[in-house]
Amino acid sequence: MNTAASNHDLQSSIASLRSGDVRSLARAISAVENRSPGWSNLLKALFPHSGRARVIGLTGSPGAGKSTLVDHLARFYRKEKRTVGIIAVDPTSPYTGGAILGDRIRMQEHFSDPGIYIRSMATRGSLGGLARTTADVTTVLDASGRDVILIETVGVGQDEVDIVRLADITVVILVPGMGDDVQTIKAGIMEIADIFVINKSDHDGAERVEREIRGLQSLAVRHDGWTPPIVNTVASQGTGVEDLAAAIAGYEAYLQKENLALKKSVENWRERLVEMLRDVMLEKVRAQISDERLEQLAGEVAGHKRDPYTLVEEIAATAGST
Amino acid sequence: MNTAASNHDLQSSIASLRSGDVRSLARAISAVENRSPGWSNLLKALFPHSGRARVIGLTGSPGAGKSTLVDHLARFYRKEKRTVGIIAVDPTSPYTGGAILGDRIRMQEHFSDPGIYIRSMATRGSLGGLARTTADVTTVLDASGRDVILIETVGVGQDEVDIVRLADITVVILVPGMGDDVQTIKAGIMEIADIFVINKSDHDGAERVEREIRGLQSLAVRHDGWTPPIVNTVASQGTGVEDLAAAIAGYEAYLQKENLALKKSVENWRERLVEMLRDVMLEKVRAQISDERLEQLAGEVAGHKRDPYTLVEEIAATAGST
Repeated sequence: MNTAASNHDLQSSIASLRSGDVRSLARAISAVENRSPGWSNLLKALFPHSGRARVIGLTGSPGAGKSTLVDHLARFYRKEKRTVGIIAVDPTSPYTGGAILGDRIRMQEHFSDPGIYIRSMATRGSLGGLARTTADVTTVLDASGRDVILIETVGVGQDEVDIVRLADITVVILVPGMGDDVQTIKAGIMEIADIFVINKSDHDGAERVEREIRGLQSLAVRHDGWTPPIVNTVASQGTGVEDLAAAIAGYEAYLQKENLALKKSVENWRERLVEMLRDVMLEKVRAQISDERLEQLAGEVAGHKRDPYTLVEEIAATAGST
Repeated sequence: MNTAASNHDLQSSIASLRSGDVRSLARAISAVENRSPGWSNLLKALFPHSGRARVIGLTGSPGAGKSTLVDHLARFYRKEKRTVGIIAVDPTSPYTGGAILGDRIRMQEHFSDPGIYIRSMATRGSLGGLARTTADVTTVLDASGRDVILIETVGVGQDEVDIVRLADITVVILVPGMGDDVQTIKAGIMEIADIFVINKSDHDGAERVEREIRGLQSLAVRHDGWTPPIVNTVASQGTGVEDLAAAIAGYEAYLQKENLALKKSVENWRERLVEMLRDVMLEKVRAQISDERLEQLAGEVAGHKRDPYTLVEEIAATAGST
């Protein structure tokens, strides 16, 4: 490979991406998402340009109205002349392997404005992983100069918690009448929410949801001293969107005042570095074992001729020595 | 440490675990779950005794009636004089960190029979991971001589898909009237289900759920040629449990006839070996970086003084060389 030429290509695609060119942005995101050749050099080159965007994560059950709310929030920020990137993540489609077409079409209908860029993502294979890929795509959007990045995820399983950890600010969207679901995810929700939204707040039971959140909040104080506000919205009518934007701005101000933004970022990076190390180390070992050899070893373990625990230690022991 | 003595301890606890002693079993599971000293040697010693149990995974949304159905299925197998192990996994409580007490109490009320052993698990820290720990606990139960192992999980996110991959047979439980949820998880569900259960089949909409499944099945043939049957149950009344057991036996027979059981096991182990390698390699790197150094590096990345992609490669490059 001609390194000088490819370095030139890299620099020119970064320059056009940073100038706001949407096609360069889309191409860079695809390269990172698909781990195409050069994806790693691309991220290395983009990273110094990132760190300026405000990253907001929004999570809630299917049907909670996340997309509609994200849509309104994006329009709000556009009125303030801020550019927006949206990453819509749906880990409940583990085998889809690509973007959720319907979602993408729905959203692009809404937006002819190049100041809003939307990307849908579903679960990739285990290598890399959804949280990791979402983080990398966030870095690309950030480096491209987007002012606000909205990450929209379904539910609050481990995947979503990992994704939400990327965000500076996490918004949890609840709806009245979800019954068992809300009960079940409570423990997780209370820990990750910086702001609660009760969407469809014109439905029966909205007060009950608010009371429940207040009740749970009274039991435990967050270690950063913040009490997450509760915002009522009716996303389908655009009601409450300004309140939500104000709540987000309020938490931003709190993070700045208490000097918490950097602390939070250091915590996130400590975890992310470990996850990245794990992936890189795995690639290193995998490069030393052919697919045929792996298949053979899996056969020996499946046939109970070898125990996998000893086997894995043996492979790891020799991995670094060559 | 006196290796001869600790080896003797290991052999004697394995002997008593294999004789059916429930306290030894519980102690071994805790050691594996908590990664207590010696957990790895324990698994190495137990593995050759595993591989005999039939592992059945059951998954469905919160409120679908999984626990009740698992309860009835366990009683059914006990009537056939088969011993049962139940692992109840709830990844929707990412921060609980331990067993779900209520669940455990509820289930132990039902069972005074030592032929049924129940263990509840919630999400552990990222090291090890829930799927990995569930796999290891399954190995312990299997080696202890349980004939049937029922793994009960919530939902169909990536965590649950990883867990379900452990099972020889996967049962997906749907209920009428779940609306959007069923729509959303369809793609994932169609791929992993060997058997569908429509629970609460006396409720309105059961026929519609069945029609939807049939409709989706008509679109794609599974690569193993199996058409997952649909079983109607009313778990609260115990209705349909024999039908479910018969469907499970039917798929078992199909796996045997088509010689698919070993093939499936080899596929699973290929993935699991890679995941185990990743964990072991990570431990290896982590052992070489102090917490202070990691904190410092995270600070440099958070301050955008270093790019994490290059940093991680540098650490990985030196990791094996010491």
